[in-house]
Amino acid sequence: MRGKLIGVGTGPGDPDLLTLKAVRAIESADVIAWFAKQGNASNARAIVADRITTQIEEHLGYPVTTEIDRRHDAYKAATSAFYAEAAARVAAHLDAGRSVAVLSEGDPLFYGSYMHLHVRLAHIYDTEVIPGITAMSGCWSQAGLPLVQGDDILSVLPGTLDEVDLSTRLNNSDGAVIMKVGRNLPKIRRAIEAAGRLDTAVYVERGTMANGHAIRLADKTDDVAPYFAIVLVPGWSTRP
Amino acid sequence: MRGKLIGVGTGPGDPDLLTLKAVRAIESADVIAWFAKQGNASNARAIVADRITTQIEEHLGYPVTTEIDRRHDAYKAATSAFYAEAAARVAAHLDAGRSVAVLSEGDPLFYGSYMHLHVRLAHIYDTEVIPGITAMSGCWSQAGLPLVQGDDILSVLPGTLDEVDLSTRLNNSDGAVIMKVGRNLPKIRRAIEAAGRLDTAVYVERGTMANGHAIRLADKTDDVAPYFAIVLVPGWSTRP
Repeated sequence: MRGKLIGVGTGPGDPDLLTLKAVRAIESADVIAWFAKQGNASNARAIVADRITTQIEEHLGYPVTTEIDRRHDAYKAATSAFYAEAAARVAAHLDAGRSVAVLSEGDPLFYGSYMHLHVRLAHIYDTEVIPGITAMSGCWSQAGLPLVQGDDILSVLPGTLDEVDLSTRLNNSDGAVIMKVGRNLPKIRRAIEAAGRLDTAVYVERGTMANGHAIRLADKTDDVAPYFAIVLVPGWSTRP
Repeated sequence: MRGKLIGVGTGPGDPDLLTLKAVRAIESADVIAWFAKQGNASNARAIVADRITTQIEEHLGYPVTTEIDRRHDAYKAATSAFYAEAAARVAAHLDAGRSVAVLSEGDPLFYGSYMHLHVRLAHIYDTEVIPGITAMSGCWSQAGLPLVQGDDILSVLPGTLDEVDLSTRLNNSDGAVIMKVGRNLPKIRRAIEAAGRLDTAVYVERGTMANGHAIRLADKTDDVAPYFAIVLVPGWSTRP
């Protein structure tokens, strides 16, 4: 009998933000699989480290692709081959009757690497996806920032968008979450200022981690930001 | 000594999607507060029912406002007075040294009623917000639908938007979540069709509840939908 594939959201960082369902799935799985760059630790695995005892571990190590242009066919070929091979390794466990919990930081189907396995395996094997707290939920909760209410429109935007596009989209949204901040921070700040929303925007670093912190973007005077920092622009302008 | 205010996300419905942190907060709180219309059951309370033992319960019952136009000043005055009174009732517990866990279906700061207490009390009392799995995460997980990846833009839209606006926003987003479907379903379907995305859109009813189900929107031939149904339009059009 074939094993079950389970995409497990591990939440944004704090192990106490695992769901009861995720804990049970991780503790009872035969195999725990997780993505990480070769030589790097996995955040998702660190979150569940205390739950791993006798399960088999399957490290799905991204190939080193930094020297290849992301828009280049060679990059796409390398990543495509990697995901096909990762899916084959997971499938081998499933074929042998072993259940496989694939860890995914945040929520599996929301910008998660697990998605690459899901589209290759979910139509073949019995599959369950256990949602997780997203990084953005972790960030606005840590910041204590009410984000959207009622009929508000929310936009989730990558910091890689150009300045005018960012600004236009901020003008057309009530709330916004800007991800992948890193070196895009000065541009993001200008776009938010152009949209007249610098006063309420909040910068959050390392969401629910022990050393996480949130400050008003207007009070952040330097341009140093990690790639995974997030900027939150709250909606809910009309409060009863 | 004053008690602590805790906004607790209860997730989308399945009690196993509570986080460990939420369970601990609910079980150790002196008071459990929850919003619900007068005479109605609270979904959030139903999710945590098994965790309520000796805690004091504080039912914050919305006034009946169905006979008042939502855009009318009388509606705003009624809801504003209600939230002020609810905050005063919670504050009385906090002043007496009792910790208060305010239940919020989904995530407290993401379209949650808890926000109305937060803006009135968080600057006065020690406050913590515990994020929860959102209804939309519950829905795309239940549907097994990869939603967004990489640099995708996601829009969260109310079904109350007009047809042209909805269609334009779908054209300008990779992924989209359309909430508050209900009687807006025929209009939402037309807008999605106009944006050329009917083929991939998915209709989800009652997310992670026992009787929840998801079907392709194109396969849903009737126009009957509950208010809290969700339509998901997946992004991630370029898969490596």
